[in-house]
Amino acid sequence: MQFHHNGYVSADPRIQPAAGVGTNRPEQLPDEMDVLIVGAGPAGIITAAQLSAFPGVHTRIIDRRPGRLEIGQADGIQSRTVETFQAFGFAERITAEAYIIKETTFWNPDPQDPGRIIRTDRTADDPSGVSEFPHLVVNQARVIDYFAEFAANSAARTVPDYGWELKDLVVEEDDDYPVKATLIGCAEDNSGVERVIRAKYAVGADGARSNVRRSIGAKLSGDKANHAWGVMDTLALTDFPDVRTKCAIHSSAGSILLIPREGGQLFRLYVDLGEVPVDNGGHVRQTPLEEIIQRAQAILKPYTLNVKDVAWHSVYEVGHRLTDRFDDVPLDQVGARDPRVFIAGDACHTHSAKAGQGMNVSMQDGFNLAWKLGYVLSGRAPESLLRSYSAERTVIAKDLIDFDKKWSSIMAASPEDLEGQEGVAEFYVRTAEFPAGFMTEYAPSELTGSNEHQELALGFPIGKRFRSAEVMRVADANPKHLGHHHRADGRYRIYVFADQQPVGQSKRLAELSSWLMESDRSPIVRFTAPGEDIDALFDVKVVYQQDYRQLDINDAPQIFRPNVGKFGLMDYEKVYTTLGSPDVFDDRQISRDGAIVIVRPDMYVANILPLEARSELTAFFEPILLQQV
Amino acid sequence: MQFHHNGYVSADPRIQPAAGVGTNRPEQLPDEMDVLIVGAGPAGIITAAQLSAFPGVHTRIIDRRPGRLEIGQADGIQSRTVETFQAFGFAERITAEAYIIKETTFWNPDPQDPGRIIRTDRTADDPSGVSEFPHLVVNQARVIDYFAEFAANSAARTVPDYGWELKDLVVEEDDDYPVKATLIGCAEDNSGVERVIRAKYAVGADGARSNVRRSIGAKLSGDKANHAWGVMDTLALTDFPDVRTKCAIHSSAGSILLIPREGGQLFRLYVDLGEVPVDNGGHVRQTPLEEIIQRAQAILKPYTLNVKDVAWHSVYEVGHRLTDRFDDVPLDQVGARDPRVFIAGDACHTHSAKAGQGMNVSMQDGFNLAWKLGYVLSGRAPESLLRSYSAERTVIAKDLIDFDKKWSSIMAASPEDLEGQEGVAEFYVRTAEFPAGFMTEYAPSELTGSNEHQELALGFPIGKRFRSAEVMRVADANPKHLGHHHRADGRYRIYVFADQQPVGQSKRLAELSSWLMESDRSPIVRFTAPGEDIDALFDVKVVYQQDYRQLDINDAPQIFRPNVGKFGLMDYEKVYTTLGSPDVFDDRQISRDGAIVIVRPDMYVANILPLEARSELTAFFEPILLQQV
Repeated sequence: MQFHHNGYVSADPRIQPAAGVGTNRPEQLPDEMDVLIVGAGPAGIITAAQLSAFPGVHTRIIDRRPGRLEIGQADGIQSRTVETFQAFGFAERITAEAYIIKETTFWNPDPQDPGRIIRTDRTADDPSGVSEFPHLVVNQARVIDYFAEFAANSAARTVPDYGWELKDLVVEEDDDYPVKATLIGCAEDNSGVERVIRAKYAVGADGARSNVRRSIGAKLSGDKANHAWGVMDTLALTDFPDVRTKCAIHSSAGSILLIPREGGQLFRLYVDLGEVPVDNGGHVRQTPLEEIIQRAQAILKPYTLNVKDVAWHSVYEVGHRLTDRFDDVPLDQVGARDPRVFIAGDACHTHSAKAGQGMNVSMQDGFNLAWKLGYVLSGRAPESLLRSYSAERTVIAKDLIDFDKKWSSIMAASPEDLEGQEGVAEFYVRTAEFPAGFMTEYAPSELTGSNEHQELALGFPIGKRFRSAEVMRVADANPKHLGHHHRADGRYRIYVFADQQPVGQSKRLAELSSWLMESDRSPIVRFTAPGEDIDALFDVKVVYQQDYRQLDINDAPQIFRPNVGKFGLMDYEKVYTTLGSPDVFDDRQISRDGAIVIVRPDMYVANILPLEARSELTAFFEPILLQQV
Repeated sequence: MQFHHNGYVSADPRIQPAAGVGTNRPEQLPDEMDVLIVGAGPAGIITAAQLSAFPGVHTRIIDRRPGRLEIGQADGIQSRTVETFQAFGFAERITAEAYIIKETTFWNPDPQDPGRIIRTDRTADDPSGVSEFPHLVVNQARVIDYFAEFAANSAARTVPDYGWELKDLVVEEDDDYPVKATLIGCAEDNSGVERVIRAKYAVGADGARSNVRRSIGAKLSGDKANHAWGVMDTLALTDFPDVRTKCAIHSSAGSILLIPREGGQLFRLYVDLGEVPVDNGGHVRQTPLEEIIQRAQAILKPYTLNVKDVAWHSVYEVGHRLTDRFDDVPLDQVGARDPRVFIAGDACHTHSAKAGQGMNVSMQDGFNLAWKLGYVLSGRAPESLLRSYSAERTVIAKDLIDFDKKWSSIMAASPEDLEGQEGVAEFYVRTAEFPAGFMTEYAPSELTGSNEHQELALGFPIGKRFRSAEVMRVADANPKHLGHHHRADGRYRIYVFADQQPVGQSKRLAELSSWLMESDRSPIVRFTAPGEDIDALFDVKVVYQQDYRQLDINDAPQIFRPNVGKFGLMDYEKVYTTLGSPDVFDDRQISRDGAIVIVRPDMYVANILPLEARSELTAFFEPILLQQV
């Protein structure tokens, strides 16, 4: 966390000085804005939070609720999502209040006495150690709280406008604010009031029954039938020993997925209610709580379950459905025009809750979209950048639906069905990286390089999220996770892994630094606006191979210790070395001849290039960004 | 963090439900209260924060400032203090915004060219690994903010009453509220207004010129002469390479202690201005900033220092002084009556700032005192418990003064003075445990057992702070630091380290559990009030030697899985095992036959006893606590 550099900050340094729209933000929802976000759920609020890092962009987020969400359905937080929380500065705080999943146990009928369940397997939650972050369970209401706090503390001072529901919207391209949205008031003081507001862009994060999706004519398709299960957040006395461990339970009386919840006592039971016939007509949703409890008691035998309190319960009935596109450009016009309206989260994809994926993928939708909107509206990027959102995220959504189909069918299968096939535990371990959120891999595109130079850093697969590693910060001898300094500030990261030359004598590094700082072909020179700090758009860091005690930080080339801010002070937090043990060069298979790793604002590896790359650097950013000088 | 157990908590679980005085707290400073704390600096605010865990006690804290402290002088945070922050729930948050001291470098004149300094040594900050917590630098204003937040979020909803200064106080023992305090208003709306209020107890945390100390007739004694140094919080351009590392610099032009500050740019220079003659008459305090900067520039040669901004500067002139007592009982009446008024922090001890001790020892003063006040005012303990505060803390203050005298004289010595003696770096490493805050060792007393059974757990020295260790929480397979679950909730901890019997077959554990739960000689039975949860005063945890996978938590004796709260739910967070690697039994030299380790509310080891201890347990708590049934 960097502060004080423009003068002393007395209070919480997490509260940014107000700037841009933060200094003159209208308290009431105005008639015109840059971005209208519909829905302050996980997809909407991360979009608002990320956009709040662009204080020149006027973002409003509406929600039909009268105030903050008090209790939400979703609670599974992938490691990838906790990485994302780190970028928004609240990973540690939310982890401290969350349940941390370390193990999953598997329960099945006792072969000796099939009326009783016994524990048959126990697996580590992250057997391959794919992330240094944990897998959490915490209510989505708290996730939203933290993003809302980030947005409110940002320079833009973004806060939700509660009590407005979107009725519909249309796009009128000839207007300066082409998106015309009709809202209906639904709070006490505006109930039934109809208002028309206009925005440059709109984001529909308004859930499975999205009015934005309907307005842009996108279609959901997928399963005809739904699968139902009863869910309850339970406080109970039980002698079932794994009530504080995630469990997949299959018994002759049905199946349960048990998820311990935060706080030490509460746990969630997903009790399978089976496939719902198409002609059920919502009948399954009438299943009384008592019946769900009785089913759970039968499944858990020989253990007892004495329910003391049910904080929340519901009967879910959901099918696997996917929208055909994530924006308002009909499929036959893709590539021919730029989008104005986007949809994200449940508005795009619905599926079972059992793999703990929904909220996570929804947030990555918003994270993917928001920086692109920020760039376009700040004049940093052409409007065509926005085409990449639907292109990138539809693929991810399809993978999600496919994975969830497999997992739900395995969870729904009876013990006999599974005989001779891959078991629940085996499937769980084999596929662990997917539900942890790390299988997202964007295909080569304008934003994502080809694999031409992938071999220079095999541990940073291009198109996948940048996997952090521990390194030594030279200036203060503090070991730091390189990736944890990637804040959700809308900047690209350029990590330069040095060659083996003594620091200060590496000609290749010195020349790269000079070129980046001075050449009119340098992306930094071209795309950083006059008057901005040299690291306003590109945060360039170096990692040397030497022991940190052998370095004088003043020998590092200038680009790695820029003078910034009001006083032109040197930034000391861009020069690193390997720790030696562990060695980032070994662990991430980085060439000892060095490499340049480019990471997008949403933390995905955009490209890998050799230290000599010049025209490649110019060419890579040319179609993405707009020249500023 | 445990919550939801009495029903669902929607918002931040760190905000406790209001209770006791929190439900009817007068907004304005009332005429009568249980505890009056004078001064909302570090010593005062931790006292208020800890007392806020006793919602039946009405605590008020006044300060002459009109609002929160904006910038404070102190900034050094010992590891022991970060442990304390953990108990108050904010160690992670403050660490995230602090500077972390990992190394100290030592600079001395170049023997080849004594007009230039060179780096001569580099030492790890915690060479012996005495704590898992770091050594921090962060402004005292932020420390106070976090304690104030804890107090405000506590059940008692304690908030400071700003704008009141204490004029004097007297004790009138025949009154129900014996402490009569005269205050003067010093905020805009009450300026000059005189008020008399009454309290059962008063705490003077009102600094080096304490009016409370004067009112109770305690005397400061110590050095006649003061030592002076110029201090400045600096933003500068410099080629001195260690400006982000703690440095002790001795040059032919004088000496500097350099402390990097939080935020990545600011650093503090302590520039030595030498011993102040007794007849100096404050002249040294007129030293202009320009002169301090020039001295610093001369000392740092051949490096340059181009000062861009000075956030704060001062000329300190401080001697080593210590009060004769920490309460209002004259030395010749000690043991004959109980105290009513206490002093803490700078009111008791003044010394140099260079060892980074002041704020830390002051907070431990308050932490030591507050739970005792809470116990007495809640009817848990006799008033005589309060005698232990002065008895325990005067010894610590004397050790502090002695240490600081040595460290300041070494820092003030010229390179020639030190020749042939132990060098600065050697002294620093040899004594590292003291400034880290871990040398406090309370002598045997009513509160602290003798060393009769110390050999059962040599790694937990009786009288020293409980040194945490990692163990496995059985219920959810989460590795946890045992000591990090010691919250500042005013409870004693009883850690039972089990013998090697299979869980559920250890007769010694089963018998201990039954005795603790049922015997009328059991401290739990005697001192827990009717209607309270069984762990309301004693938090009893067990650590087994087996692998956690061999345990069924339901085999642990009842005392380790009590039924608590509104629904009588089982607490799952009291049963642990060794991790295997590391093994707490090996690392803390705990007998394989088991041991009972008792830890006071302020985290110090109170006693160690064998698993068979019965009469010893009864006898140990008998003089400290009051029987409730």
